[in-house]
Formats: sequence, structure tokens, C-alpha cells
Amino acid sequence: MIKLYGTPVVDKMLKDINNKLNYLSKNNIIPKLAIVRLGENNDDILYEKSIIKNANSIGMQTDINVLPLNTEHKTLEELIIKLNNDKSIHGILIFNSLPINIDESKIKKIIKAEKDIDCISYNNIAKLFIGKEPDFIPCTVEAVIELLNFYNIDVEGKIITIIGRSEIVGKPLSIMLLNKNATVTICHSKTVNLIEECKKADILISSVGKANIITDKYINKDQIIIDIGINYLDGKICGDVNFDSVKDKIKMITPVPGGIGTITTTILIKNTIYNAYNLYINNR
Amino acid sequence: MIKLYGTPVVDKMLKDINNKLNYLSKNNIIPKLAIVRLGENNDDILYEKSIIKNANSIGMQTDINVLPLNTEHKTLEELIIKLNNDKSIHGILIFNSLPINIDESKIKKIIKAEKDIDCISYNNIAKLFIGKEPDFIPCTVEAVIELLNFYNIDVEGKIITIIGRSEIVGKPLSIMLLNKNATVTICHSKTVNLIEECKKADILISSVGKANIITDKYINKDQIIIDIGINYLDGKICGDVNFDSVKDKIKMITPVPGGIGTITTTILIKNTIYNAYNLYINNR
Repeated sequence: MIKLYGTPVVDKMLKDINNKLNYLSKNNIIPKLAIVRLGENNDDILYEKSIIKNANSIGMQTDINVLPLNTEHKTLEELIIKLNNDKSIHGILIFNSLPINIDESKIKKIIKAEKDIDCISYNNIAKLFIGKEPDFIPCTVEAVIELLNFYNIDVEGKIITIIGRSEIVGKPLSIMLLNKNATVTICHSKTVNLIEECKKADILISSVGKANIITDKYINKDQIIIDIGINYLDGKICGDVNFDSVKDKIKMITPVPGGIGTITTTILIKNTIYNAYNLYINNR
Repeated sequence: MIKLYGTPVVDKMLKDINNKLNYLSKNNIIPKLAIVRLGENNDDILYEKSIIKNANSIGMQTDINVLPLNTEHKTLEELIIKLNNDKSIHGILIFNSLPINIDESKIKKIIKAEKDIDCISYNNIAKLFIGKEPDFIPCTVEAVIELLNFYNIDVEGKIITIIGRSEIVGKPLSIMLLNKNATVTICHSKTVNLIEECKKADILISSVGKANIITDKYINKDQIIIDIGINYLDGKICGDVNFDSVKDKIKMITPVPGGIGTITTTILIKNTIYNAYNLYINNR
């Protein structure tokens, strides 16, 4: 069994990221990512910390905007418009768990497509869906695509089963892989024949978010497993896949930690820096 | 084997359509659908004729805009803006086969979501994708949903295989059925295990557009088949499914002609009339 580590994928990306950063630095531009968080959701805070750490280590700025959970829609909308218009901001990340007093549709309509580095705007979602190049694709989805490319895993004609149908992972990933000529099955909590759908797959992708639920019952010996889950069990990070149960019975797997999650944060940073670069080049 | 005819589905819809038409008529409003066609594509012309015939029979107006195939982008954009702003127009249908001199993305960005009765605008596509109620869903997709509802075919937990991944049928239909808790597999020309993927399905949906390609090799005896294909063979209309080959070996099937196609044109008319009704009610 081969472990598909995220670090070499990141290292390859970092070469080009650093080139662009140097070029921007020579022209007195420091890329800046704005983060918008409402409330104190623990997962959001952990993700935010890892972004800040990664951004700092590379010389990119972050602009952290924390609002209370009971923020009025209008206040959030005004903040987004300010960030849209602020020329020093090159990317906007809004944490997904927005409270119900916020009209999410409106927020997704107003966020500028060119700063929408995690692909939540209507413009980018629609482009992704119809197979036109969106400005950005969701970071986790891009992390999967980068990993497949890096390890030369061709998906054309491959049978791919995705577990999970979220709008930021399962659905856009299914469309991206479909556009790349894979045959895609999307499973979820209401799927009755999950074992068969998983067993048949050349590539099994899990984004359920439940520790260790995928065991050797779900796999086949030639399978490549992409484990997107990041779960906490007894104080340790683990994936959706029970690694010990499957490790001797499959072809390849992304480890957790050290797999897709490692790449995702770098994608976010890359998107912001590339966007700063493109904006500078196009407006010289 | 039970034939799932489109006519009773249409008849049920027509009751409510006629109620709304009468109400509008009493208030001196005649719903009007604008059709925009570039060039003389034969399929477009046949569809257009069937829409005009159906619209006339019910007392709805059509506004047919035919432009040459080499129309400049700007000219088309100006036409769409005019139709967007024309209060006598309640729906806009742009035939899908736009020539390459047209920037399709731009057209899809500018068409007003509330007149976009076939769901090609970015706003409606994005809403459909993320599971929010779009103003409209693509007519063929809605025709399938209406048929399933009419015949009380519950899709929750069902295994559904869709052949075809177009942006107006396969992709949006897969998302709609996924949102309704079906387990969905999307197949296409690059699928290598098409027979297995079709055989396993509780519901098999074909939108390939090739006459008679689905035979008894692809089916199972408890299967419900939805045949979306409209093909011409020896001067006759037929579906993607070889009816004679499967008819005694499945549970239910939509005939061609007389199935989904029968419903689709009515959906287009229904959407226009309901839109006229909603616009009137909301602006009284």
C-alpha cells in the first residue's frame, strides 16, 4: 500500500508561490487574505489558526474580522462590500457556518467573484457547474485535484464513489471529476447500498466527517482512497477511514493527518497570492 | 409493464394553469414568452413550432426573435436587455446552440433570473446547485420531477443512474435527485462499465440522444425507465430506449413519443404563466 502524502504536493506548489511572492514583494505588494468569522465555532477557530500560521510563515498578511453570532445581515453585507472594494485585500474567506439571521444567498451574490478564493459566490459556482473556468474552485476540491495530478492518477473512465454531498466538497468535486470524464456516484446518509457503491469504486473519496467509519468491508484491493475527513478521537486527529482496517488491503490512501488537509490550507494561500499577482499584472 | 404517459401529468397541470390564465385575463394581462433563436438549427425550429402551437392553443402569446447565426455578441446582449426590461414579456427562452462568436457566459449573467424560465442564468444555476429554491429549474428536469411526483415514485434512498451529463439535463437532474435523497450515478460516453451501472439502478434515466441504444442488456426486471431522448429514425420519433427489447422485462417506462417530451413544453408555458401571475400579484 502506498501512502499519498500531501507534503510533496505542497512543496511543488510552494516553488511557484514563492516566485510570485518575490515578484510582488519587489513591487511593494504584500498579498492579504481577509477572513470573516461569525461567532466562536471551534472548527472555524482551528482552521483560522492554521491559515494564520501558514500565511505568516510565507510572508502573507491576514485581516481577521470576527463578528458576534447575532450580527445583523446588513452589518455583514457592509463588511463584505468594504472588503470587495479594499484594494489591499486579495482574497475573502467567509467561514461556512453562518447563523440563520444572515441571508446567505445575498452574501453569496455580493461577494466579488475575483476575490472569492473559496468559490462560494453564485458566479463561480455557476461556472464550475457548467464546466466553464471559474475564478476559483473550493479549496478542498482543488486539493484533491492537485493530489491526483501530482501522483499521476488519471480519472478518465474511472469509477469514482464520493461519500458526502456538501456544497463545498461532495457536489463540486463530483462535477469537477465528471468534467474530467470519470463515472461518478454520490452517496450520503440516505444511501441504502453504501457497501456495494464503495466496493465497486476504482477511487473512493470520503468526506463524511465521522471518525473511522470506512472499514475493510467497503473496499477492494485495487482501490485508491482519498480521505477528506478531519475528525478528533481521543484527542487525536483521524480521518473517515479506519486506517488499520484497510491498510493492507488497498492500493493507495491519503493519510490523515498529512494528506488532503495539508494541501487545502496551501491552496487558500496560493489562490490569494495568485490573485494578487494577476490583479497587479492586469492593472499595470 | 406500466407505461408512464405524459398526458395525465399535463392534464393535471393544465387545471391550475387555466385558473391562473383566467385570473390574468380578467385583469387584462396576456402572458407572453419571448423566444430567441440564432440561425436555422432544425431541432430548434421543431421545438419552437411545438411551443408556439401549445401556447396558441391555451391563449398565451409568443414573441419570436430570430437573428442570423453570425450575429455580433453586442446585438444579442442588447436584445436580451430589451426583453429583460419589457414588462409585457414574462419569460425568455434562448435556444441552447449559440454560435462561438457569442460570449455565452455573459448572456447567462445578464438574463434576469425572474424571466429565466429554462434556468440558464448564473443566479438560478447556482441556487439549484446549492439546494436553495431557484426561480426556475430547467424544463426537462422539472418534467421528470413532475412525472415522478404524479405517479408517486419516491426517490429517497433509490439507486438512480443517469446517462448523459449535459448542463441542461444530466447535471441539474443529478443534483435535484441528490437533493431528494437518491443515490445518483452519472454516466456518459467515457463510462467503461455502463451495463453494470445501468443494471443496478432502481430508476434508469437516459438523456443520450441516440435512437434505441438501451436494450435489455442494460436493465433489471424491477426497473423504472425514464427515457428523455427524442430521436428521429426512419421518419419516426423514438427514444434512447429500444422499447421492444425491454418492454416485457421491466416494471415501468415513459414512452417516446408521449412521455417526458409531452410534459416539457407545458412546463415552459406553465413557468411563463405562473411568472406573469406572480409578477402581477406582487406588484398590485
